[in-house]
Amino acid sequence: MTGLRFDVTGIGNAIVDTLATAEDDLLAREKLNKGGMALVDEARADHLYSQMSQTTVISGGSAANTIVGAASFGAKTAFIGKVKDDAAGREFAHDIRGMGVHFTTPAAIDGPATARCLVFVTPDGERTMNTYLGACQNLTAADVDPELIKSSAITYLEGYLWDPPAAKEAFIKAADIAHDAGQKVALTLSDAFCVDRYRAEFLNLIRTKKVDIVFANQHELRSLYETSDFDTALGALRDENILGVVTRSEHGSVVVTREATREVGAFPIDRLVDTTGAGDLFAAGFLAGLAKDKDLADCARLGALAAAEVIQHVGARPQKNLAQRARENGLAL
Amino acid sequence: MTGLRFDVTGIGNAIVDTLATAEDDLLAREKLNKGGMALVDEARADHLYSQMSQTTVISGGSAANTIVGAASFGAKTAFIGKVKDDAAGREFAHDIRGMGVHFTTPAAIDGPATARCLVFVTPDGERTMNTYLGACQNLTAADVDPELIKSSAITYLEGYLWDPPAAKEAFIKAADIAHDAGQKVALTLSDAFCVDRYRAEFLNLIRTKKVDIVFANQHELRSLYETSDFDTALGALRDENILGVVTRSEHGSVVVTREATREVGAFPIDRLVDTTGAGDLFAAGFLAGLAKDKDLADCARLGALAAAEVIQHVGARPQKNLAQRARENGLAL
Repeated sequence: MTGLRFDVTGIGNAIVDTLATAEDDLLAREKLNKGGMALVDEARADHLYSQMSQTTVISGGSAANTIVGAASFGAKTAFIGKVKDDAAGREFAHDIRGMGVHFTTPAAIDGPATARCLVFVTPDGERTMNTYLGACQNLTAADVDPELIKSSAITYLEGYLWDPPAAKEAFIKAADIAHDAGQKVALTLSDAFCVDRYRAEFLNLIRTKKVDIVFANQHELRSLYETSDFDTALGALRDENILGVVTRSEHGSVVVTREATREVGAFPIDRLVDTTGAGDLFAAGFLAGLAKDKDLADCARLGALAAAEVIQHVGARPQKNLAQRARENGLAL
Repeated sequence: MTGLRFDVTGIGNAIVDTLATAEDDLLAREKLNKGGMALVDEARADHLYSQMSQTTVISGGSAANTIVGAASFGAKTAFIGKVKDDAAGREFAHDIRGMGVHFTTPAAIDGPATARCLVFVTPDGERTMNTYLGACQNLTAADVDPELIKSSAITYLEGYLWDPPAAKEAFIKAADIAHDAGQKVALTLSDAFCVDRYRAEFLNLIRTKKVDIVFANQHELRSLYETSDFDTALGALRDENILGVVTRSEHGSVVVTREATREVGAFPIDRLVDTTGAGDLFAAGFLAGLAKDKDLADCARLGALAAAEVIQHVGARPQKNLAQRARENGLAL
């Protein structure tokens, strides 16, 4: 995959995260589903924000985190997503461009504010997310630049794009352009509840070959195939005859194709601080490796290395140069 | 010091921090004085922001960090400082109130934006700060509520208040009200360059007994007495006949009165991530202990514990409940 302008282009919800530590009783009082992502309206977002203590504000968004992570590995990357021209939107744009990501989606001048995700981090490091989609609801197929998609080895799409009404058209348009240009399309299932909302559509994307690569964690995979048995779900994924990448937290990851199943261990950590972004950064490492034609086990190792970095601090964007971390660990790209 | 409404009230610049990791060559290119705080105008702030990669935004301000830290120890606290009614100003107000701090200084409706501090964190964990004072320049004596100061056991003032033109009047007014009500006044010297700018005035504050307690790190102390020898500077501080609290990074702290000198070790850490806020949080623990009539060595231990927490993550506000950390370490307040 050389000679192309971009290694990976991501399309996703452009979100700024607001994180705060919280005790489990706050989650219970607010009826928050621990470890999950809930969509909230503006009033609910305002209420939940009022329940937060000290906050940390960091640009987020699942696919955006992945793209920034891939950029930190040295990949040539681009991102498509909708912010409003407000303080949060300018912060999002600054941060993603600051990491060298090509980002030119025009900001909305009016309408809802830039999306925010209120993340409660409990003492066990688990994060519980509440997303107000705001300006993301205005992402449309018109925001997908065909030349950008054509020149990207991989177009990476988040399942969360099924939530804002018009974004799935952008998703389909991008996938079709990528395939017509002989490029690859990857999808992350995003969240077990997201899979629950759009199971039939996600299975249809896989079975009609709109996507070539699927990222999932074990919860999302079991939700996709409606089984409590991981091996059953994994077997079902293998039978789809695509490249499947399944993360299993501290148990590492499994990469499946019709021909082979590869298990790769998790990367060791000193201490777990905040799991926010673990899946996003795993995908970052994997895609950065894949774009450089690394073998699939090394792609998974790069993913594990990136996930390990991001769960040892608050926030879902890397704080260290991942290319350097990869070199230090014998995984130079 | 019981029966009073507030243990500690802080007066300081109300600032939102924007942090980014940076290599040393960026500091050299931008002629930034490593480890120091420089005042910058809006254009320079915009330029430096454009040089930052991925950012983390966290409410800051030296005295504000200290007050939030004291609140995390369970102290009854208040803060006086000026923000504008903009996104950053609302974040600052949310965060300080979210920690239980009484904060009612009216936000400016027009004029300069809420102050921001651009912090470059180098791989050695050192922070280099660039402050655009913005709305802080509009803090005046009128913002000092006499009832609040009278009802605070300790009023804590930052030396940085000498930078915005009108704030020193607020400082003097607060110190006089506190003393008239029989309360204590504490001053942090803030920064060695700040001491260099206002040495004569700071010495005058000490020698005219406008302040009862002085916090300094070793660089600030040496700057105050214009000596390269730490022991000489410490002797000079002891001769002022006030309570002097001097921090020495990994070498712990020294508490001096005319009668005695107490040395207390640093609190052990697993890894240094970002020294931002170390001095602020040391003062938080010390003041929280002092307000509860702890002996001076225990006050210094509480300071060391808080400083150790804050230097193990990005940002100058505590991410853990410090009252709980104190209990776990036999330092219950």
